[in-house]
Amino acid sequence: MIQASRGGRSPPSPPASRGEEEWGMVKGGQGSDAMAAAGEVEENMAAWLVAKNTLKIMPFKLPPLGPHDVRVRMKAVGICGSDVHYLREMRIAHFVVKEPMVIGHECAGVIEEVGSGVTHLAAGDRVALEPGISCWRCRHCKGGRYNLCDDMKFFATPPVHGSLANQIVHPADLCFKLPDGVSLEEGAMCEPLSVGVHACRRAGVGPETAVLIMGAGPIGLVSLLAARAFGAPRVAIVDVDEHRLAVAKSLGADAAVRVSARPEDTAEEVARIQAALGGAEIDVSLDCAGFSKTLATALEATRPGGRVCLVGMGHNEMTVPLTSAAIREVDVVGIFRYKDTWPLCIEFLRSGKVDVKPLITHRFGFSQREVEEAFEVSARGRDAIKVMFNL
Amino acid sequence: MIQASRGGRSPPSPPASRGEEEWGMVKGGQGSDAMAAAGEVEENMAAWLVAKNTLKIMPFKLPPLGPHDVRVRMKAVGICGSDVHYLREMRIAHFVVKEPMVIGHECAGVIEEVGSGVTHLAAGDRVALEPGISCWRCRHCKGGRYNLCDDMKFFATPPVHGSLANQIVHPADLCFKLPDGVSLEEGAMCEPLSVGVHACRRAGVGPETAVLIMGAGPIGLVSLLAARAFGAPRVAIVDVDEHRLAVAKSLGADAAVRVSARPEDTAEEVARIQAALGGAEIDVSLDCAGFSKTLATALEATRPGGRVCLVGMGHNEMTVPLTSAAIREVDVVGIFRYKDTWPLCIEFLRSGKVDVKPLITHRFGFSQREVEEAFEVSARGRDAIKVMFNL
Amino acid sequence: MIQASRGGRSPPSPPASRGEEEWGMVKGGQGSDAMAAAGEVEENMAAWLVAKNTLKIMPFKLPPLGPHDVRVRMKAVGICGSDVHYLREMRIAHFVVKEPMVIGHECAGVIEEVGSGVTHLAAGDRVALEPGISCWRCRHCKGGRYNLCDDMKFFATPPVHGSLANQIVHPADLCFKLPDGVSLEEGAMCEPLSVGVHACRRAGVGPETAVLIMGAGPIGLVSLLAARAFGAPRVAIVDVDEHRLAVAKSLGADAAVRVSARPEDTAEEVARIQAALGGAEIDVSLDCAGFSKTLATALEATRPGGRVCLVGMGHNEMTVPLTSAAIREVDVVGIFRYKDTWPLCIEFLRSGKVDVKPLITHRFGFSQREVEEAFEVSARGRDAIKVMFNL
Amino acid sequence: MIQASRGGRSPPSPPASRGEEEWGMVKGGQGSDAMAAAGEVEENMAAWLVAKNTLKIMPFKLPPLGPHDVRVRMKAVGICGSDVHYLREMRIAHFVVKEPMVIGHECAGVIEEVGSGVTHLAAGDRVALEPGISCWRCRHCKGGRYNLCDDMKFFATPPVHGSLANQIVHPADLCFKLPDGVSLEEGAMCEPLSVGVHACRRAGVGPETAVLIMGAGPIGLVSLLAARAFGAPRVAIVDVDEHRLAVAKSLGADAAVRVSARPEDTAEEVARIQAALGGAEIDVSLDCAGFSKTLATALEATRPGGRVCLVGMGHNEMTVPLTSAAIREVDVVGIFRYKDTWPLCIEFLRSGKVDVKPLITHRFGFSQREVEEAFEVSARGRDAIKVMFNL
Repeated sequence: MIQASRGGRSPPSPPASRGEEEWGMVKGGQGSDAMAAAGEVEENMAAWLVAKNTLKIMPFKLPPLGPHDVRVRMKAVGICGSDVHYLREMRIAHFVVKEPMVIGHECAGVIEEVGSGVTHLAAGDRVALEPGISCWRCRHCKGGRYNLCDDMKFFATPPVHGSLANQIVHPADLCFKLPDGVSLEEGAMCEPLSVGVHACRRAGVGPETAVLIMGAGPIGLVSLLAARAFGAPRVAIVDVDEHRLAVAKSLGADAAVRVSARPEDTAEEVARIQAALGGAEIDVSLDCAGFSKTLATALEATRPGGRVCLVGMGHNEMTVPLTSAAIREVDVVGIFRYKDTWPLCIEFLRSGKVDVKPLITHRFGFSQREVEEAFEVSARGRDAIKVMFNL
Repeated sequence: MIQASRGGRSPPSPPASRGEEEWGMVKGGQGSDAMAAAGEVEENMAAWLVAKNTLKIMPFKLPPLGPHDVRVRMKAVGICGSDVHYLREMRIAHFVVKEPMVIGHECAGVIEEVGSGVTHLAAGDRVALEPGISCWRCRHCKGGRYNLCDDMKFFATPPVHGSLANQIVHPADLCFKLPDGVSLEEGAMCEPLSVGVHACRRAGVGPETAVLIMGAGPIGLVSLLAARAFGAPRVAIVDVDEHRLAVAKSLGADAAVRVSARPEDTAEEVARIQAALGGAEIDVSLDCAGFSKTLATALEATRPGGRVCLVGMGHNEMTVPLTSAAIREVDVVGIFRYKDTWPLCIEFLRSGKVDVKPLITHRFGFSQREVEEAFEVSARGRDAIKVMFNL
Repeated sequence: MIQASRGGRSPPSPPASRGEEEWGMVKGGQGSDAMAAAGEVEENMAAWLVAKNTLKIMPFKLPPLGPHDVRVRMKAVGICGSDVHYLREMRIAHFVVKEPMVIGHECAGVIEEVGSGVTHLAAGDRVALEPGISCWRCRHCKGGRYNLCDDMKFFATPPVHGSLANQIVHPADLCFKLPDGVSLEEGAMCEPLSVGVHACRRAGVGPETAVLIMGAGPIGLVSLLAARAFGAPRVAIVDVDEHRLAVAKSLGADAAVRVSARPEDTAEEVARIQAALGGAEIDVSLDCAGFSKTLATALEATRPGGRVCLVGMGHNEMTVPLTSAAIREVDVVGIFRYKDTWPLCIEFLRSGKVDVKPLITHRFGFSQREVEEAFEVSARGRDAIKVMFNL
Repeated sequence: MIQASRGGRSPPSPPASRGEEEWGMVKGGQGSDAMAAAGEVEENMAAWLVAKNTLKIMPFKLPPLGPHDVRVRMKAVGICGSDVHYLREMRIAHFVVKEPMVIGHECAGVIEEVGSGVTHLAAGDRVALEPGISCWRCRHCKGGRYNLCDDMKFFATPPVHGSLANQIVHPADLCFKLPDGVSLEEGAMCEPLSVGVHACRRAGVGPETAVLIMGAGPIGLVSLLAARAFGAPRVAIVDVDEHRLAVAKSLGADAAVRVSARPEDTAEEVARIQAALGGAEIDVSLDCAGFSKTLATALEATRPGGRVCLVGMGHNEMTVPLTSAAIREVDVVGIFRYKDTWPLCIEFLRSGKVDVKPLITHRFGFSQREVEEAFEVSARGRDAIKVMFNL
């Protein structure tokens, strides 16, 4: 399949640049031909989203290496729900895939080459990659909340290419060296884990906060792992699915509460959750589902002066008892991706405070057939938590 | 009317003490007769809420003065919307008036007598009174958020009596001396001003935050005054009523935006608000109305990384675009009353950073007829912002 | 020896009260005679500091039980360095022991009787006691920093009696129930552990802060345990004593660095410390010794933007390179005792995140001879970390 | 003198670019000859520090304009104490002037040309310039504290050139548009004002903090102005010089306390300061002198739980009663320059909350003679607060 796409025309290149220069996507159409003509033995291949439900492995020309960039050979790339969503819909909210785009953003690899100004990395280093390149000129970047950057360039968010490719070029400061004992697959898991870490930071999870997690999907599970690593003394998790709850228990939840998807009395649901925690007050709730029903439960279950973090995005318009939360001074905060999380994620993995390996349920190689199959498995969900490519 | 009630049976009197027992309300018994028998010339009268829409001035027996208490002659008492609500409904949420209750909680007066352990106050001192007595034993009290106290005793919140009376007994540490140049009426205004101050603190209003205020009623106006005093460089205020907006402008709003009560396109409303502020980003919104419509506008109008404080309580169940706020990391916080606000309010009044005098639109004496009329004026609203009793 | 003191005159009672009532010390002289006359079989005995280097077990009359008080039978009481200091000097700073005073403040026991207003405790409950009773009327109490209370009454800080006694009366809200699996001795250890916990909170220790601890004495060791429990990924500890360092290593320090007491080049010392941590930056330093030399090392070793907490109190006047710390924005904070730490300490003990048992090196019964011996052992230091009475 | 230097050898010109290369300074070479040869009518001149006590106006070749840069015609440049220090010593701490360096960093001007990627500025815009270009790759930059950047390039800090020149090239995001009504001289004052603003932020100055300022030199005065603008209700200022104190009073200090430079009893000095504030507690102290004596006074004068910010840099090694501050939980923080202050400074100037005009005591043109004279006036101090060049 890879052979089949050789010689084909490489897809058009979208406008995307970091600072002045282009940063890593094919420029012009004849990249592979040019490379072939130059006698280059290996061509860089990537998984391109070319149309709804259509991914194709095709050549991906790398940009020149800037002084602060590194070239990385990808070794492990995970599939995220957003990748599946783009594949199905060619859009998420106002981000629309108008031109073929390389997919993938949960990744780790090995440094092949470093730019002239890079001092902290060298060829052969194993690194996990943070996917977003922020502008460092807007108020958010300067104020320490670069995840809210007005001009973020983020892997596989159109029109920016992703990282499911043999090689990519990326800023060196977004590549974090993995210590011995942390695998490349674990490195790729820093991205989903970062969501849980950022949620815990925003919600103020620590050794004094009993935590409720609504939803035991992949985001709920990384939030559970992060909450434990931040020292949460007790964590309850709620879902409609027995299997997911069993996984959550095995990953360290103190209490797993099954609820129905049907309208249920919130007060009763809250009572069951609190009973499951032995009556402990809930200081922080992380709504990893994001529906009116789950958020209502989170708001009502959280103690006065506590905090609810909205992590999942089930509904946009929410119908919830917000005033009764407000007069108990239960704050509601949300998250957008993450910032400054890789060093902490890697530390959690190094120390063993977080073990992400049980989340990796499926592995695939990087052929056209396997890519297609992997996305199907990931989309089916349920027993697939994290689907990982080994390149 | 005051005369008429003299000689009537005073309501029962409990032993006054701060702690587990009732604290300062008459509980049946022959208090006034006893006093009369003792030849006491002056009887302490109070405004009692005895039934729906029925207030009666009747004797109110004071508890004994504890070592850390003071006896205060009330001089200025304002009417709050909650007082009117109790008069109309005999309840607010789960607080139900089951026994006759003295009403009123916005107040200032002159010290008549101090307990044996009181050193910072003396007879003759003019003081503003903070209405809530917290337990200092629960986690909230110990953690510095005593407004969330599990066992708060608060003026005119059943079954605790209020302060619309000739005299009351109150803990000395909740009585704050007024400096020269701050009147007793201004002292009584510390209570409503405290709501604005607490909202501004919770929302993080300061010299770097442009502020949007939804609603120009009494709470919106004190929030406006507080926001200005906290240094907000720009404040826009939104209401459906031209008159209220004109008042807000005269009190220092930079922009006053009239909106319709009918469903309006939120995006268009937001655009008009931002235009009125000259395109400045809104860092903090204070929703002093508390309806789905006003909160939706507040959420959408606030910049990424900003904060919305829910101050008003129009609806409990809100239908709002919460997820789109969450992914911009717009936090939603609420308030319950206030904590530790009197010293700052008094400082604002002393320095002239806040002028509450324009808010006092009506004044009444303390007779049966005037009390009835005052509550009617307050309930009619509109041109009445704050109705004040001079005792 | 206990027998010898029976029937003796109880010592004079110092003025000390919580709120209005006296709170737990002998009133007038004939307490024990009065009790004997009443046929009471058991007399309450306590260890009284009566003169320099003189402790005597003598009767200690309990105050009446207030509605929010409990009477506790002491079971475990530890000796603190401050107890030894009072015994040696009859003073600490401006606190002077002018009248005989019951010593001891690290304690746990079993509830014997509860006041009429106490609902969360019952006779038979095992509790750890927080020693300080704050006024709840000053700005510090109201502002959530009650450890800075203007009018604190604290066990064994003159003129307030301590808790090395058969029984004491104490406010119920300062008695914290121990869960199954946490022993009374561990309960008594909540007090010294609280110092480490408060230091970690003030210094912002968490999963992202590598920590340096200067001094491996008892305070250094509880700070080490607390830092680990707060999630510190790496902890280095520095001392002049090999034995103490060996203990610290066994308690979980990643690196133990021996330094000399002689003037040493700070830069070289810092380099050795950083090398011992594998080159990791130090985010937070806890100076548990409190000398110019140790603080200078802490300041220089801490990374720009980090924090130093001054925990020990070796010198008052310090000669340190403060400006070079300031221009790296290394903050210097101190601690005074602790606030709101018992629930967290108990949670740390329950979950096993902290194991204080290795710190308890010596145990004594409650006889005159043993009390004297115990203080001698504690004063000798070195191999004695914590000396505990079992009553 | 300007003529004299024309035709002289201009220093070499490096490629200007933000990142790994030098960014805008001439490096020897024949720049001016080349320009003359090209028939360029205007040559860009700058004030070069060439040796101890020797400044020379000489040509300064501009780097090429990057896509995110602007070229600015300087209009107002102030002299800072650090400029004078470099002139006298050719070094500050470990920053040594080894090659001729353009001096100056407090500046404002008019945009002449904008890079291709600049959208928020246009030729003709009046702007104030933030002098430091941070790397945006280190932990400090990413964590929101870019002033601590590991690789900062800052105007007139060797080997980086400053801004006392006809024109300079600078990143557009560090150029802040001045609103109508704020002059270019006021724009240049944003730099010293930023020091006061950053100190107030770090110290937590606001409407609830009475402030003590030690030292009424230029830094003390901008700190006074900033503290007032942050809402400090009361500000006391202390100095040894009557004239400086009189200026401080005229700028809004509530109390000005003259102390002697000789060793004085700290307790007495503190008592006099507190008396001058009418007995008000001091919540925050800003030590703008930075000597052991001034810091000792600041520490002792500040209330328990308060904060001291070390702003001035008189001594490095300090001998101060740090432990007695620590046990009152008086925090000590320092500052390094500032971050994110220009928008707030400009807002303060726009609204009139800060008036910096009285600080500008002397003005000079940009000739060799005037530059020399201006630095002499600035170095003499006393009646010169801020010396400003109008170019």
